[in-house]
Amino acid sequence: MQRVELYRFPTSGPEDVSGLAALVERGTVDPASIICLLGKTEGNGCVNDFSRGYATAAYTRFLASVLGARDDEIARRVLFIMSGGTEGVMTPHMSVFARRAVPERPGGAKRLAAGIAHTRPLRSEELGTAAQVQTVADSVRAAMAEAGIAGAADVHFVQIKCPLLTAEAIAGARARGEVVVTSSTYASMGYSRGAAALGVALALGEVAAAEVTDAAIGRRWDLYSRVASTSAGVELDNCEVLVLGNAATASDLVIGHDVMADAIDAAAVRRALAAAGCQPDAADLGQRVAGVYAKAEADPSGRIRGRRHTMIDDSDINHTRHARAAVSAVIASIVGDPMVYVSGGAEHQGPSGGGPVAAIVHTG
Amino acid sequence: MQRVELYRFPTSGPEDVSGLAALVERGTVDPASIICLLGKTEGNGCVNDFSRGYATAAYTRFLASVLGARDDEIARRVLFIMSGGTEGVMTPHMSVFARRAVPERPGGAKRLAAGIAHTRPLRSEELGTAAQVQTVADSVRAAMAEAGIAGAADVHFVQIKCPLLTAEAIAGARARGEVVVTSSTYASMGYSRGAAALGVALALGEVAAAEVTDAAIGRRWDLYSRVASTSAGVELDNCEVLVLGNAATASDLVIGHDVMADAIDAAAVRRALAAAGCQPDAADLGQRVAGVYAKAEADPSGRIRGRRHTMIDDSDINHTRHARAAVSAVIASIVGDPMVYVSGGAEHQGPSGGGPVAAIVHTG
Amino acid sequence: MQRVELYRFPTSGPEDVSGLAALVERGTVDPASIICLLGKTEGNGCVNDFSRGYATAAYTRFLASVLGARDDEIARRVLFIMSGGTEGVMTPHMSVFARRAVPERPGGAKRLAAGIAHTRPLRSEELGTAAQVQTVADSVRAAMAEAGIAGAADVHFVQIKCPLLTAEAIAGARARGEVVVTSSTYASMGYSRGAAALGVALALGEVAAAEVTDAAIGRRWDLYSRVASTSAGVELDNCEVLVLGNAATASDLVIGHDVMADAIDAAAVRRALAAAGCQPDAADLGQRVAGVYAKAEADPSGRIRGRRHTMIDDSDINHTRHARAAVSAVIASIVGDPMVYVSGGAEHQGPSGGGPVAAIVHTG
Amino acid sequence: MQRVELYRFPTSGPEDVSGLAALVERGTVDPASIICLLGKTEGNGCVNDFSRGYATAAYTRFLASVLGARDDEIARRVLFIMSGGTEGVMTPHMSVFARRAVPERPGGAKRLAAGIAHTRPLRSEELGTAAQVQTVADSVRAAMAEAGIAGAADVHFVQIKCPLLTAEAIAGARARGEVVVTSSTYASMGYSRGAAALGVALALGEVAAAEVTDAAIGRRWDLYSRVASTSAGVELDNCEVLVLGNAATASDLVIGHDVMADAIDAAAVRRALAAAGCQPDAADLGQRVAGVYAKAEADPSGRIRGRRHTMIDDSDINHTRHARAAVSAVIASIVGDPMVYVSGGAEHQGPSGGGPVAAIVHTG
Repeated sequence: MQRVELYRFPTSGPEDVSGLAALVERGTVDPASIICLLGKTEGNGCVNDFSRGYATAAYTRFLASVLGARDDEIARRVLFIMSGGTEGVMTPHMSVFARRAVPERPGGAKRLAAGIAHTRPLRSEELGTAAQVQTVADSVRAAMAEAGIAGAADVHFVQIKCPLLTAEAIAGARARGEVVVTSSTYASMGYSRGAAALGVALALGEVAAAEVTDAAIGRRWDLYSRVASTSAGVELDNCEVLVLGNAATASDLVIGHDVMADAIDAAAVRRALAAAGCQPDAADLGQRVAGVYAKAEADPSGRIRGRRHTMIDDSDINHTRHARAAVSAVIASIVGDPMVYVSGGAEHQGPSGGGPVAAIVHTG
Repeated sequence: MQRVELYRFPTSGPEDVSGLAALVERGTVDPASIICLLGKTEGNGCVNDFSRGYATAAYTRFLASVLGARDDEIARRVLFIMSGGTEGVMTPHMSVFARRAVPERPGGAKRLAAGIAHTRPLRSEELGTAAQVQTVADSVRAAMAEAGIAGAADVHFVQIKCPLLTAEAIAGARARGEVVVTSSTYASMGYSRGAAALGVALALGEVAAAEVTDAAIGRRWDLYSRVASTSAGVELDNCEVLVLGNAATASDLVIGHDVMADAIDAAAVRRALAAAGCQPDAADLGQRVAGVYAKAEADPSGRIRGRRHTMIDDSDINHTRHARAAVSAVIASIVGDPMVYVSGGAEHQGPSGGGPVAAIVHTG
Repeated sequence: MQRVELYRFPTSGPEDVSGLAALVERGTVDPASIICLLGKTEGNGCVNDFSRGYATAAYTRFLASVLGARDDEIARRVLFIMSGGTEGVMTPHMSVFARRAVPERPGGAKRLAAGIAHTRPLRSEELGTAAQVQTVADSVRAAMAEAGIAGAADVHFVQIKCPLLTAEAIAGARARGEVVVTSSTYASMGYSRGAAALGVALALGEVAAAEVTDAAIGRRWDLYSRVASTSAGVELDNCEVLVLGNAATASDLVIGHDVMADAIDAAAVRRALAAAGCQPDAADLGQRVAGVYAKAEADPSGRIRGRRHTMIDDSDINHTRHARAAVSAVIASIVGDPMVYVSGGAEHQGPSGGGPVAAIVHTG
Repeated sequence: MQRVELYRFPTSGPEDVSGLAALVERGTVDPASIICLLGKTEGNGCVNDFSRGYATAAYTRFLASVLGARDDEIARRVLFIMSGGTEGVMTPHMSVFARRAVPERPGGAKRLAAGIAHTRPLRSEELGTAAQVQTVADSVRAAMAEAGIAGAADVHFVQIKCPLLTAEAIAGARARGEVVVTSSTYASMGYSRGAAALGVALALGEVAAAEVTDAAIGRRWDLYSRVASTSAGVELDNCEVLVLGNAATASDLVIGHDVMADAIDAAAVRRALAAAGCQPDAADLGQRVAGVYAKAEADPSGRIRGRRHTMIDDSDINHTRHARAAVSAVIASIVGDPMVYVSGGAEHQGPSGGGPVAAIVHTG
């Protein structure tokens, strides 16, 4: 029977693998059981954020070393998702998801299950289009099946790492006579995140297939997934998918989620904790919470609860950085811990200006 | 009998005086009764933030125009305190404090009282030293007396605008053979804020006179005021002081305060609301809250609740900007409104890494 | 007979009018003769750059005061063009163009002539379209006529200030059912600059009317003006045009121009000086040069002379800021003075990656 | 007889080793002959610049792989100096210095020689003090001897990588009861660079031993080296020294240098080229120049040739970034190639506001 475990530890820099090394040395984590590393690294989270690639390289190297494998073998078998940007109070940290087979656990409530999948490489001209949506949807369904999750209602968080367009990629596509969705590398991150999120929504029946056209991506903000969390990075050319949900597993963890309507929606964070079985005012909240994962964005309307914000018009700090700083502080103030995962750019991830939030909690 | 009123309105830019113009045109505010304009403007809040000076110029001009006065007369009679930086969800806005004499209000609980004072101009070599502390302390006492506030226990927020050292000022002081506290314009903002805050602490008996030496400023973080909020700006050469507290007045407002121990101390925000007579979970919270005012800083230890943060080592975004984004989001998530006043750089304002928070609330 | 004069002075901040005040007090400049103030102000030159508006307000106020006029009268009669961004070595400064009638100067070579014009207000949906191109072209022709410049060959610099789309303007247009050229405020600055530049090109016969379609703006980089310099700002809703050229005037100045092929094209700067009659290696170069005006942009190909640059992929510093820093240093190193005017964002202003450069020189 | 070779290639990112891989594969470079990798990487060049460590890790890994050695063996035998920050036109690139023994070259002029040395690890309390100066001076002399350079007059560039103080190091030193030179990690970079540069100056007789006191470091800007180039990085605890000069070698390269008096001193760049035997206006300049290396800083006086600059007061962009953008553009405009090495922070490296510039040129 499947058992999924989650270990988290702070890092002192993108290349700091000491937390994982300690877990492996102590025998707490079998490195061969690791299926996903989901990190918050301390770059700017935008185009020229090398902290993501640096962390990926360091952890790949570490796992290759302890497992006696080549780097490329590790890259094929473990999902590395590094989300850049630890603005405000957010602590750079790593979440390690491990999965192994254990003896059957007798009956009872559903517990944390996890599945992973990779899409094929995307061509530059496919990025941010319905083609990306379709291939992501296929992979989400594959990951659900792999996780043994019965249906969409049991899926609570789908984390995807997706590519972006570099200046070179744009030039290359044009040289081949192809059209790309945008000529801005920064803007391409939003298109890629949005298309990936609609892929989740499509797989889970949150949107109708007919609605997911090229034209809808980045425009029809009423179309969204309530559980998608997508991050764009320069270091890959396909999409990597982690599906988290509850199923008949032997895990000691449960996941729940809710949707923040806007960046200051503390009530939604509380509901997500409760959905995972933990009352937000519980005295042992700190012990119970194994991890909180959320998406953030600057409300594109320029307003939050009718009030103007300046995140979008700030030419010194990208709006994704403002949004991460705000939402991570709200969540940290509720769980009492700044080691939370908040990723920026919530296009088609939750309603416009808001985003999904999931809590993974130790069973009582 | 004194009656203090508080009006707040969002602005669409530093120069946007339309909110005040509407209040004056409707007869809601008598421009002659205005004693202080306390604004959040949308610059970077650091050295080259021109949004503060621009707002001050625009509001000075407006008041001069409606009052038939010269600009310099307005500058002498109204306290303009513009705090730059509306990171994250924070809404650029203006708080207008007006004070007028009204018929006696019969007995009852203490209500909002306000007093203002100006220090003499500070020489560059005095900035950030015990000399600044002393002159601020004198002005705080003068403002308390003017407000009719009986004692330190009734003071709940002291807002001060203080100068900084420009490159020209530093060069000028050195040309005169004087020593300045720092050769960094950015660092000088912290020294000036810190010395002003210790001036408040000295006036209110929060620190002993013997402790407030040159060497303590910017180093002895155990010395602080629980009610000081100080902002540095390039546009003035003296300190301007606004003392807010409760006294026998005819105001319909009450002020309370508490101290955030760190940037995610939501409980302190709740206590500040309660201290002003408003339960934080009240259904009519939105109507009751007239304004929330707080200070924020990146914990200089590099840690919050034992977790590492990256605000101090970020060479792209100044730590004051990170801190404002975080704390304003926490407060906004509690009061349900992003129009909150959070000012960065809390040197000697609350404990290290934390800061004072005050709530002004309409009486029931 | 027309005589155009140019006075330049450094400023200590956006609001610093002391340089102009001194010129007026000494009687050097008759304030009534001023037709244009062209400034480099020290903001970020992007969307939230308030240094431009602040400077405009301060100079408007000053001129209104010395001329005994209302602010709006000054705004109608003087062209205020503030270009934000003084990165690298560039000195914040103001160029004051004055024009007055003097007795006929007998024959001889053509000398500096200047004309100004304003377009009608542009609707948000017109910004960045062929409609903007047309209205700018009309105004360029009007300004040429006013300047007495005979033909396109005698036009050497056309400076235009044009509007941008704010978040509010975009929302407003959409509420009216209109389509805007981009939903990004930052991107709208490029569209507006590009359309204005093509307006210059159209007026001067540098492009054919049939080529200037909506689709060409921001895409057909082979269409450009060799003399256009356009800056976008939040503080206006129409375009303001200053045409500089040589004609039969009584000026003591001559203007020449050339086109930088890329950001490090020092030879073009030298040719522009020579075109204005001043050899770039002249011993009295410093005395001869009255002002240098240029446009800069990060080469959108991502390469300069075949080498990669990182300006476009830098998510911490906007590429316009990088480009201004580079080009201003190149020009300053040739003229031996950092007080040069370099404005960012050279869409359709010179070839892709390059930009026009004009020199105004005192006659021998 | 010693022969020193220099290979340069652009990189597509910090981790891009393809340029070196191609040189090794083609047999152009024997990896065992490499003594130093001197890179410009595309981070912010300040505290949180991970591009330096990422590049070092990638190149270490590559060399370990092709040489069949362990990473730590490579780190001991090759000097990795990564300077962050490619602002403006500057191309991220790597300079590879290789040195091998070849048959005697008969007589003739002096040619490029290179020597390397490492200091002992520095204690945190030694950083930025006379102790660092002394140990660096010893290593410079050792590297000169190793290079076979006869005297100070034949030394033309000394590149040093030096440590900085992290928050942890500062805390550690204080826990041991030691005093550190600054409590700011960012400021510590300047102290370390300055002390290392004075170490060069001391070794070369550019300053007198008695003058190099703790108090002089970071204050006596009249004390400086004309050939030192120092960079601080978080990834080492000692100083690594590369001395470049001319001696009796079999190299096909010659090095020359000069000192830029300020950021726009184009004449000094020309003199450095000429000193290396290449006329700056030579038609084959592009072929002749093998590499240009310079230091840049924002003039701490706030002025360049009497004109104000805004680099120091810019709270959005660190002044080192502005300075690199400016100086690299000036040099690129002269050599006609943006692939130049300009490093920021020129404390005690050239006169205040200026810095050394060295050219390595192929012999005719």
